[in-house]
Amino acid sequence: MKNKTIAAIDIGGTKTIAALMGMDGTIISQQRLDTAPASGPEQASRRICASVKQLLAHTGGELAIAGVCAPGPLSRTTGRIIHIASIGWKDVAIRDMLSAGLGVPVVLENDANAAAYGEYAAGAGRGSHTMMFLTISTGIGGGCVTDGRLIHGASDSACEAGHICIRPGGVGCNCGSRGCFEAYASGTGMRRLVRADLRRGVKSSLYDMADIEEIDCLMVENAARQGDAYARSAWRREGRYLGQGIAILLQLFDFDRLVLGGGLSNALDLYQPALRVTLRRHTYAHMYDNLTISAAGLGGLAGVYGAGLLALEEAGR
Amino acid sequence: MKNKTIAAIDIGGTKTIAALMGMDGTIISQQRLDTAPASGPEQASRRICASVKQLLAHTGGELAIAGVCAPGPLSRTTGRIIHIASIGWKDVAIRDMLSAGLGVPVVLENDANAAAYGEYAAGAGRGSHTMMFLTISTGIGGGCVTDGRLIHGASDSACEAGHICIRPGGVGCNCGSRGCFEAYASGTGMRRLVRADLRRGVKSSLYDMADIEEIDCLMVENAARQGDAYARSAWRREGRYLGQGIAILLQLFDFDRLVLGGGLSNALDLYQPALRVTLRRHTYAHMYDNLTISAAGLGGLAGVYGAGLLALEEAGR
Repeated sequence: MKNKTIAAIDIGGTKTIAALMGMDGTIISQQRLDTAPASGPEQASRRICASVKQLLAHTGGELAIAGVCAPGPLSRTTGRIIHIASIGWKDVAIRDMLSAGLGVPVVLENDANAAAYGEYAAGAGRGSHTMMFLTISTGIGGGCVTDGRLIHGASDSACEAGHICIRPGGVGCNCGSRGCFEAYASGTGMRRLVRADLRRGVKSSLYDMADIEEIDCLMVENAARQGDAYARSAWRREGRYLGQGIAILLQLFDFDRLVLGGGLSNALDLYQPALRVTLRRHTYAHMYDNLTISAAGLGGLAGVYGAGLLALEEAGR
Repeated sequence: MKNKTIAAIDIGGTKTIAALMGMDGTIISQQRLDTAPASGPEQASRRICASVKQLLAHTGGELAIAGVCAPGPLSRTTGRIIHIASIGWKDVAIRDMLSAGLGVPVVLENDANAAAYGEYAAGAGRGSHTMMFLTISTGIGGGCVTDGRLIHGASDSACEAGHICIRPGGVGCNCGSRGCFEAYASGTGMRRLVRADLRRGVKSSLYDMADIEEIDCLMVENAARQGDAYARSAWRREGRYLGQGIAILLQLFDFDRLVLGGGLSNALDLYQPALRVTLRRHTYAHMYDNLTISAAGLGGLAGVYGAGLLALEEAGR
């Protein structure tokens, strides 16, 4: 009998990662491909299946099951992606497409949940009782694992932290609501606030880096590391906004580990002190004192790890 | 062999309920006693054990296990109550005290969680996938059951919804923070807002019911039911404040059933329309459309049911 392996697939708006995972949970080989969403989900699915088969041809082995994650909202019950706003896919039967192409059962999971599970089982969340994973980049996404299990909710949309309201009547969000957590604390939110400050004429070395409308969070990070006082204050503000949303999450999920992923997790050292002050102010000591905060450990592979490990678990049932 | 029964105990700040539950989850007999917290937890524990034994002497049967709930924060791991602020108990080894007195193992649970589990298994939450229980009275407490299990968190304090911030920099809360959900939407919060309106001289029949500083939510409910326009608007405002907090809960826990307990659940018909409008505005349609809202079904017995049923489950392991 051939060696059994698992296909682990992370479908993103731009790139897709296809990987093979051993039954011990390690990643054997992987390939990055363009999602090329404009050509449609059927085409994308065919390319993904071809990529997995290519990897299999290289390493040998036989597929036992596949795990796939994609941006939500999606339904684990029906195996369908409901809507990926960023690339315009709607009502895609992704599980059946991939299952037909690969000839094995497919386990579908939301990408933030898969990344959360990956970090919990194989990354920065190992050893925690309850772990909250937040990805902070263009938006804010999340997932929570407690007692070894992901919290899914009734429509597989639990932990959609980006759009909880932290400022009633605050700035408009692209979701149609106002004052959303991600409108302030995501990379997009921070960039907006920094550009507004620069337009108002704050003193900063950032003006030398690019036109105001081109300034991004990486530049603010670099400026802060070079000692720019304004840039450092902008990260403290980011810490306070993150703290407002995370205080709500901490009180509701009572996690002992917070794992931050996404682009802004690289600047954790710059905003962690302000984040901690805000958290301490808004939460009970017995929650706050238990809490460890760390940057994600698996980087861009967290989703692939999670998708594969969730499939591995399903196969073991 | 004698019939096996379960002791189910709900310790409150004023009253305690001791009950016997059959192995089929029905309550056989119950007794209410004064908690009399001033005489200390050892005394209270002795009275509770005596009450259970009295019930047992009446019905016959032999205890298999006991379930007890009490106001938190408490630790299920150590079996100790950390602190009950309202009655001044601190670091109470309640599980060991009751276990020694009753001669059986004791399962300890936070009172809001026990009530949530009771409603989920035997009350208004039956048949749901994910149920959020909120008790709205002096404060706001909560518990969430998903996939058949309570969400406990790392320090048994998950779903402490009363102190999530819904108004940054808002009114001071007795927790030391500002803008807490319960400072606006609890019975205490509503009463405070109504009294302030009356002091400002709004037109209402409430002035005829009592002195302004004696006006309570039940009077506002009665006035609204008698057609008082101000009282009706006060309930709409209550619905909006409740909606702000519950929108956050809905996005994070993605529940398909919301069960409201506590004194203010009796006025659900008066504030549900405004609550629903706020929820719809702040949450995704696929979450909102799934949602059923109902008043608690077990009334003051939810905690006793939950404590007993959790013990029954533990006994079955």
